[in-house]
Amino acid sequence: MKVSVVGVTGYSGLELVKILESHPNADLVSVYATKEVGQELSYIYPHLDEVTALKVEAFDAEKIMSEADLVFFATPSGIAKDYAHYFVEADFPFIDLSGDHRLPAETYQKWYQKTPAKTEVLEQFTYGLSEFTALKCKHHIANPGCYATATELALIPLLKAQVIDLESIIVDAKSGLSGAGKNPTSASHFVHVHDNYVTYKLNQHQHIPEIVQTLQSYEPNLSHIQFSTSLIPVARGIVATLYLKLTADLTENELLEIYQKAYENKPFVRVKSHLPHLHHVIGSNYTDIGLSYNPLTQVLTVVAVLDNLVKGAAGQAVQNMNLMFGFAETAGLLAAPAFI
Amino acid sequence: MKVSVVGVTGYSGLELVKILESHPNADLVSVYATKEVGQELSYIYPHLDEVTALKVEAFDAEKIMSEADLVFFATPSGIAKDYAHYFVEADFPFIDLSGDHRLPAETYQKWYQKTPAKTEVLEQFTYGLSEFTALKCKHHIANPGCYATATELALIPLLKAQVIDLESIIVDAKSGLSGAGKNPTSASHFVHVHDNYVTYKLNQHQHIPEIVQTLQSYEPNLSHIQFSTSLIPVARGIVATLYLKLTADLTENELLEIYQKAYENKPFVRVKSHLPHLHHVIGSNYTDIGLSYNPLTQVLTVVAVLDNLVKGAAGQAVQNMNLMFGFAETAGLLAAPAFI
Amino acid sequence: MKVSVVGVTGYSGLELVKILESHPNADLVSVYATKEVGQELSYIYPHLDEVTALKVEAFDAEKIMSEADLVFFATPSGIAKDYAHYFVEADFPFIDLSGDHRLPAETYQKWYQKTPAKTEVLEQFTYGLSEFTALKCKHHIANPGCYATATELALIPLLKAQVIDLESIIVDAKSGLSGAGKNPTSASHFVHVHDNYVTYKLNQHQHIPEIVQTLQSYEPNLSHIQFSTSLIPVARGIVATLYLKLTADLTENELLEIYQKAYENKPFVRVKSHLPHLHHVIGSNYTDIGLSYNPLTQVLTVVAVLDNLVKGAAGQAVQNMNLMFGFAETAGLLAAPAFI
Amino acid sequence: MKVSVVGVTGYSGLELVKILESHPNADLVSVYATKEVGQELSYIYPHLDEVTALKVEAFDAEKIMSEADLVFFATPSGIAKDYAHYFVEADFPFIDLSGDHRLPAETYQKWYQKTPAKTEVLEQFTYGLSEFTALKCKHHIANPGCYATATELALIPLLKAQVIDLESIIVDAKSGLSGAGKNPTSASHFVHVHDNYVTYKLNQHQHIPEIVQTLQSYEPNLSHIQFSTSLIPVARGIVATLYLKLTADLTENELLEIYQKAYENKPFVRVKSHLPHLHHVIGSNYTDIGLSYNPLTQVLTVVAVLDNLVKGAAGQAVQNMNLMFGFAETAGLLAAPAFI
Repeated sequence: MKVSVVGVTGYSGLELVKILESHPNADLVSVYATKEVGQELSYIYPHLDEVTALKVEAFDAEKIMSEADLVFFATPSGIAKDYAHYFVEADFPFIDLSGDHRLPAETYQKWYQKTPAKTEVLEQFTYGLSEFTALKCKHHIANPGCYATATELALIPLLKAQVIDLESIIVDAKSGLSGAGKNPTSASHFVHVHDNYVTYKLNQHQHIPEIVQTLQSYEPNLSHIQFSTSLIPVARGIVATLYLKLTADLTENELLEIYQKAYENKPFVRVKSHLPHLHHVIGSNYTDIGLSYNPLTQVLTVVAVLDNLVKGAAGQAVQNMNLMFGFAETAGLLAAPAFI
Repeated sequence: MKVSVVGVTGYSGLELVKILESHPNADLVSVYATKEVGQELSYIYPHLDEVTALKVEAFDAEKIMSEADLVFFATPSGIAKDYAHYFVEADFPFIDLSGDHRLPAETYQKWYQKTPAKTEVLEQFTYGLSEFTALKCKHHIANPGCYATATELALIPLLKAQVIDLESIIVDAKSGLSGAGKNPTSASHFVHVHDNYVTYKLNQHQHIPEIVQTLQSYEPNLSHIQFSTSLIPVARGIVATLYLKLTADLTENELLEIYQKAYENKPFVRVKSHLPHLHHVIGSNYTDIGLSYNPLTQVLTVVAVLDNLVKGAAGQAVQNMNLMFGFAETAGLLAAPAFI
Repeated sequence: MKVSVVGVTGYSGLELVKILESHPNADLVSVYATKEVGQELSYIYPHLDEVTALKVEAFDAEKIMSEADLVFFATPSGIAKDYAHYFVEADFPFIDLSGDHRLPAETYQKWYQKTPAKTEVLEQFTYGLSEFTALKCKHHIANPGCYATATELALIPLLKAQVIDLESIIVDAKSGLSGAGKNPTSASHFVHVHDNYVTYKLNQHQHIPEIVQTLQSYEPNLSHIQFSTSLIPVARGIVATLYLKLTADLTENELLEIYQKAYENKPFVRVKSHLPHLHHVIGSNYTDIGLSYNPLTQVLTVVAVLDNLVKGAAGQAVQNMNLMFGFAETAGLLAAPAFI
Repeated sequence: MKVSVVGVTGYSGLELVKILESHPNADLVSVYATKEVGQELSYIYPHLDEVTALKVEAFDAEKIMSEADLVFFATPSGIAKDYAHYFVEADFPFIDLSGDHRLPAETYQKWYQKTPAKTEVLEQFTYGLSEFTALKCKHHIANPGCYATATELALIPLLKAQVIDLESIIVDAKSGLSGAGKNPTSASHFVHVHDNYVTYKLNQHQHIPEIVQTLQSYEPNLSHIQFSTSLIPVARGIVATLYLKLTADLTENELLEIYQKAYENKPFVRVKSHLPHLHHVIGSNYTDIGLSYNPLTQVLTVVAVLDNLVKGAAGQAVQNMNLMFGFAETAGLLAAPAFI
């Protein structure tokens, strides 16, 4: 099938190019951005030399729909919402990597401080957490956020098993800088990030309502979570450390079994008997989950790690495409972690 | 006064040299190590050229006691305990930066997996958390650990104010690599640490009993804390993120006031209306503490940051020396944070 | 074809596993190391979970020759030389990633300070710089070093074109830490490497005779090069900056053409009209080469970058395997650069 | 004496505050910037809490001259040139850390692409390379650039000794990111810098004419140098690696002696028998210089390292103030290197 990428010059867009150009079932036919239109993508991003011969084009919904079978929007938040309707009205397959179609209009407005998409468009979107959503034949996907993916994959199995105290959920999440996007700011300046550890948007990160909403579909009684976000001096990676109190008397092995069952046919979630490191997943579409129970404090610690640009963005988007179109779930996504 | 440093070639020992060589009241007269005896310290560590002219000597308790008025032990754990008795028996001032004299014998044996010091020696030691211990005229000080200092300074004011649920204490602590010492291991290899985030010794870190013991002197009902330790790719720094539930209905301002009062005459603890970054303290003896209360989850987040080699080791040791001997508390310790 | 890897737990060995497990023509059947024999490789290196199911075995030349068609030795220098004769005598295909079979016995002894392989074994080896050596049907390959690959690819075209002053060659080469191997030392400790820049083995690096020997086969009058090696705080990557004086009056474009012709059918060398960055190649088998001529000083600057574990080790080894056995040169090696 | 700092919120300005607030002979009375006027500096930069109580003021030349005895301009290039005349006309002491008063008007215009200061103002400025310029009673100082300081300190002794081939000078210089200033750009984004090595402005860096001009005052026959600049993923530090051919037959010891004599009464240049690392100088006002001679290639390698914000900017500015006003040269500048 033929695919296009809009917002190709962001980190997620560039990651999509790498994945799609070696995907056995997809043919990347065009890429779009607002700047550097007309340039070869590999001229602007020399790492892509020999990887792609595509030139950057100016956005054109009609052209995309005439030449491709699916479009990925890898634009910053606040853009896809203004263009999705072209594709939704035409029932043209659309995967939005941004946060524009994940939340109800009112919630979006509150947390993103932007005018939301129209409700009739929003209603056409399915939230695409690959491991938990039936996506076959769906056409419009809101791809989950990076923090959200890690947190949801760590919590859903326990919520489904009804073993945790809903008032006890604390998430201490850390992200590499690519998660904050490519726009240069004083917060993304090398000198500021390097040798530093910066907690930001405490309890105010826009992934919070996304996570709560998703979790509520498994546990309606859950009404909030405590959620910290910090930037660590790495380029890629999400580490979600969760602290939970149990409502049932379970051993570590029993807890691991809950996860193992939940993910037994899921190729991209690896349940671990140790706490995972970022090195185990960076460069791959894997999410690794490990845990440790402290009988003294009765606190369960769960650690979930993923690469924010792969499983947290472009990789999961392609995984969703695979599921939508009935390709092998792992098609194009079997790159091993870089390790170092 | 004249001072000596034993274990000078470790990170804390080298930091002591820098501080003591510019201290207005102290004169560093001799330094000791087991390797490279006879060499000029500045030959082995060229950054110290023009800073010190001392040569490394082989340990000799008699010589130290004859030429100095105080000795700092900056040795790895398991060493000071075998030599402290020489100094204790002679009532010679001794500050131990290692963990050897912080815990009762049995607890030490369990957590450090080493033969403890004799109880009669241990009993001579005072745990020297500078802001909370009366040290004037004390002679034998167990200097607190780096994680312990950050955690205790963040918790004691709240415990004294009796405003937190003792069962709710969760500490997610992160450390730079210098905290793990200078010994090269696969865990300290650059390639392993860089671009990584590694949670280790979960609920098993040897600072846990130290922290619990200290806190119990302020709140006897506290019996345990949940305590995570992770290595982040920075050289220096402790970030302690604490999650707490309150037992009283307090605003953020009221909580800040508790801290402000606790530290109003304490020159090295800065209470902040924002969450502090590592950059605010690295290179200095400051501990910065900030907080944020989430009314939705009723979780109070407290963040304490310090430089593990300064306030978490050598700086606090010198602060303790100042307090023991009646010098200005800040003498030799007013270096501003490096910032970057 | 079936292949085995000896020395699998080093950085190059682990990189070989990643490449070979997704190679269309190769089937990795066994892996060997001296430690952790009997363990699943993915248990020791969790990033390899789902990537390989192989267990670490104790070295056994007979077993390798009975079950595989080729063996890679990814051992530290000083090991392959003691085992190669088993395979050479049996004319069994053997690719040595270490420095043991690159140099004549006497030169090896001088630069590596180790007993060399026997001359009759050394003579069976072909130095495998993929772009310049005819490898078809060769059976015993000495895979080039990482610094050597970058430097040789940058210099051979100019030497062949006879346009540089042989006395003028200065190479200022920088390497990431994985190039120094996995063995933890004070030089590889995170705290030492981070925020530092360390020039080491100036004019004494063991790749110097390898480079000079290779270059002499293109220009017998070349007798030495000035060669600096420095460690930069990155995990992967070689940057070779060359300063050269020209003997001919050439424009930048003419110089670029020399390179473009030299590499026109070479899929893994990309000639650039700008100076390349490490980000352009890390994670891939590409070497990028760019240049700039300063008419004022008459100095030509050439910059070559590569990933020391891919084109500088495991990638080039697989490229050599492809050439030896007539597979597509790029088979298994088309992973795009990670970029970030 | 009383001093003011203009451009206080840049990296060099903030470094000046740290140094001046603990200087025994200087009293920092006011600080100026264009943004955040009226705010406490320690509110904007929390690391300065307890270090300074000053508020940011809007620039006012009259006020500065009425309340202070000297002004430091730590502004980006292109600003001091528009304000210096107020101070020069009043013969008010002025140290310009920017590049605005280092070059003749025409050269400045060419390399900085900005309108130059008036020649009559430029002529009042003395280029202040502390170790080589008589500054006593001078009033208007152009403080050298960071790359320039390292390169000049490495070359002047050899030029004065007339032992190097002037056509052979090659400088491969590397800088940490703070050298590029605080303005966030795609080139200073953490994700771009981290794990990368970027050569930029090859032969086009604006410090080149400054260096050539300074060197010509010691060797009029020198007309150009080959000069490369690269960014390495550290926050602070300049490493200048120089490659030189000798015109005299000298041993390494004889070469070291040339440097030792040149710097024997200079407290901030340390001549080394080894090649220095960044760790040896960061955080201090030292420049360390080491060398190695290769008899085979007849190339002398000299490595000079310094902290770009201290000896390469604020530290040297204060050293110059000390020399201008007859204070101890080391006053306020004896902070030991951070080491790690």
